[in-house]
Amino acid sequence: MAICEDMIVTRKDDDFGEWYSQVVVNGEMIENYDITGCYVMRPWAVSMWEIMKEYFDAEIKKMKIKNCYFPMFVSASDLQKEKDHMEGFAHEVAWVTKSGESELKLPIAIRPTSETIMCPYFSKWIRGHRDLPLRLNQWCNVVRWESRNPTPFIRSCEFLWQEGHTAFATKEEADTEVLDILELYRYIYEELLAVPVIKGKKSKHETFAGGLYTTTVEAFVPNTGRGVQGATSNCLGQNFAKMFEINFENEKGENAMVWQNSWAFTTRTLGVMVMVHGDDKGLVLPPNVASLQAIVIPIVSNQDDADTDGMIFDACETTVKLLNEAGIRADADLRDNYSHGWKKSHWEVKGVPLRIDIGPKDLANKQVRAVRRDSLAETDIPMADLVGKVKEMLDCIQQNLFNIAKQKRDSSIQVVHTWEEFVEALDHKKMIFAPWCDEEAVEKDVIARTKGAAKSLCSPLDQPPLAEVPCASHLESLLRNGPTGE
Amino acid sequence: MAICEDMIVTRKDDDFGEWYSQVVVNGEMIENYDITGCYVMRPWAVSMWEIMKEYFDAEIKKMKIKNCYFPMFVSASDLQKEKDHMEGFAHEVAWVTKSGESELKLPIAIRPTSETIMCPYFSKWIRGHRDLPLRLNQWCNVVRWESRNPTPFIRSCEFLWQEGHTAFATKEEADTEVLDILELYRYIYEELLAVPVIKGKKSKHETFAGGLYTTTVEAFVPNTGRGVQGATSNCLGQNFAKMFEINFENEKGENAMVWQNSWAFTTRTLGVMVMVHGDDKGLVLPPNVASLQAIVIPIVSNQDDADTDGMIFDACETTVKLLNEAGIRADADLRDNYSHGWKKSHWEVKGVPLRIDIGPKDLANKQVRAVRRDSLAETDIPMADLVGKVKEMLDCIQQNLFNIAKQKRDSSIQVVHTWEEFVEALDHKKMIFAPWCDEEAVEKDVIARTKGAAKSLCSPLDQPPLAEVPCASHLESLLRNGPTGE
Repeated sequence: MAICEDMIVTRKDDDFGEWYSQVVVNGEMIENYDITGCYVMRPWAVSMWEIMKEYFDAEIKKMKIKNCYFPMFVSASDLQKEKDHMEGFAHEVAWVTKSGESELKLPIAIRPTSETIMCPYFSKWIRGHRDLPLRLNQWCNVVRWESRNPTPFIRSCEFLWQEGHTAFATKEEADTEVLDILELYRYIYEELLAVPVIKGKKSKHETFAGGLYTTTVEAFVPNTGRGVQGATSNCLGQNFAKMFEINFENEKGENAMVWQNSWAFTTRTLGVMVMVHGDDKGLVLPPNVASLQAIVIPIVSNQDDADTDGMIFDACETTVKLLNEAGIRADADLRDNYSHGWKKSHWEVKGVPLRIDIGPKDLANKQVRAVRRDSLAETDIPMADLVGKVKEMLDCIQQNLFNIAKQKRDSSIQVVHTWEEFVEALDHKKMIFAPWCDEEAVEKDVIARTKGAAKSLCSPLDQPPLAEVPCASHLESLLRNGPTGE
Repeated sequence: MAICEDMIVTRKDDDFGEWYSQVVVNGEMIENYDITGCYVMRPWAVSMWEIMKEYFDAEIKKMKIKNCYFPMFVSASDLQKEKDHMEGFAHEVAWVTKSGESELKLPIAIRPTSETIMCPYFSKWIRGHRDLPLRLNQWCNVVRWESRNPTPFIRSCEFLWQEGHTAFATKEEADTEVLDILELYRYIYEELLAVPVIKGKKSKHETFAGGLYTTTVEAFVPNTGRGVQGATSNCLGQNFAKMFEINFENEKGENAMVWQNSWAFTTRTLGVMVMVHGDDKGLVLPPNVASLQAIVIPIVSNQDDADTDGMIFDACETTVKLLNEAGIRADADLRDNYSHGWKKSHWEVKGVPLRIDIGPKDLANKQVRAVRRDSLAETDIPMADLVGKVKEMLDCIQQNLFNIAKQKRDSSIQVVHTWEEFVEALDHKKMIFAPWCDEEAVEKDVIARTKGAAKSLCSPLDQPPLAEVPCASHLESLLRNGPTGE
């Protein structure tokens, strides 16, 4: 039996962390790097990032948001101007202290995010209400030096993202943008990555450092039983405006202060997608984000029949051409030094949504055989129906991945009303839906009691009705007075 | 008279450096930053960078070159592996030594370029001849800490670029790619930026640190009389392959070493474009790279005639719509708090190729008035011919900018045969075409004798015939034995 050298040897349910490491490496998304927390993003990963980027960039351009590029370096004095903000990032900031052989006079920070880099310019550029709204975005790398448990895509020292920074005359406009952007993030997760998310508002404790409120799309990884913050859209309120003096003359001729937002999604998206859809054979890519949606593989005859083999190769190339012309991202693997079995495994590990085999029998029957990566189901497609059928199957795979993920996610949601139920649900790796007072002391108490196993994700924007709902502080009192034996 | 507050007050020919600083800032491409050598790239600059990026990215994808993303951090040991390479960059490397409050065990460098970051992976990924060619590219930021004379776009501490890194089985394939990429760089300069360049090969002294040979597109800035290295496409030979052990089994089953290239163009392109085309009124953007090709401005009636003004505004919007539908990047400036005179100056400083005015007379005559930024020539265009005429004018502007730049460049080329002629041409800010031995000692001697005023640009790939050409070492002997009184 032909075995691909990069097969996944650990089962997803046996050792999820090890499985994930194998899948991102053997699926050729990532290579590990000799500096802790840094990873090499291979073309397979970058091509998916580019698809998300293209979508998002076009959408924000429609909204008249413009791309800019600010320096990656920031002086300590600017970085520290907003105190809460600095406190949130201080422990993970990387500092440049030398250039060549010379010590710098003052250490310079590498951006963990760019609020404090951009704000001085907002202050300069904004004079009157006609300069508003000011809406900027940049695509760049940022650095957050995390030594605890680095994980490719999910938690790394350097990562790629977009960061939007905007200023408005009124809070209403800022509020509206926060949700407009959040909807784009939902789209990226649900429509491109086929990962269901819950839109919600973060607790005070989890709000962006220095911000007024944070909205989020929260994904869920059934294997770990943990929610993952997918992307956040923040209203900064006027905190930064105060510190950086971002004022303007409003329509009445009065001096006013702007309302600001910032929002970002990162390469973490790719990690969430891998964790949610991947299986024991490797990556499983949703067609909408896969840079290769279909791989065409010839099955050469055993009889060393050069004529037939030639016709099979031609059929493969014709198939690719037809699919490409229809806008389907397809390619053929015509390498003659690998067996069909090796190629099958290879493209399975890489998660290509559809494999199309063409052998002597298919040639004779004027058909191809399509094998779905998600379900492994095989279908014979007459060449005459090729494009239509392949499109249909890709749509079906996309929908199926989402449905399965949603079903798993939904069945992991547990509604609880008491502390006992809360602890039990947590033990069963559930995502818990509970009444919640949003008081920081209570949240810290829950974290302490559960030894960090519980963490607030969000207050969903769209809440299903809770039967027999206690008041918002009910759980709080449960928590404060509940059993201490957890 | 309405004056735009951002008018350029220094003439290009009076104080070129000061003029350039004013133009990039007032033209809204750049803001200065409080860390020396760092600059803010505003949307006006980024949108042009995106146009170049889109062109180049599509071209290299056709060549099957794939995008990747490697970490920005590199360990000292990897960075130092290729000695010549390290020597070339050591003095300008930025070092991270702290994260949060903790000292790192070992200082970590920020990439000045990524050869030494990628090579270990080339060594891992390349086993046999079937793994070749390996052709990667990344779009990213790099840092070269230069304190001497930082200049926006041209010489900055951090800049944006693409860097291609490729490996081939044979030198022939590497040689071919070097020139294929160089041709793309020529296209960017000549066809997008309307800046004429000379393709050539760098002297040994100017060759990329650690490389075998460097090809370049050299632009020329008449005002400074200096050539500017526009972009380079390097053959690295096997120097890096040796140090990083990038070997493969060739078709004969023998162990062989790869041939590597690296090539890059940077945001410097934008600076060269500004220097070549800009004038005393500000930026002059070539239409092919201008994110806004035409700006439509209403001329409101003096009679406070609301009906006519309304119709003028409608005509502006219709004009923009027609142009956009034809693929022309146009917008209208309908702001009512700025006068026509202010807007005229504003868009002139920003260099928009075509201004389209619409006033009561134009409305009556079913026409618009188009004003070229390059020549300031005005033309009435019947609305019926709008799209065709505007396209024609944009093409004409593009061609005209190139022609003028080429004429200036060509008239600055001086063919010399003696050291006296050489020195005289240099004094007259000429680009000198001279016989040349390409010996490093001679080059250093010329630099020393001219106190750094002379610097070798390249040996043109396409050499015009030199009448009465002396042998290649003739100038050398002239230089060695020439008058010492320079």
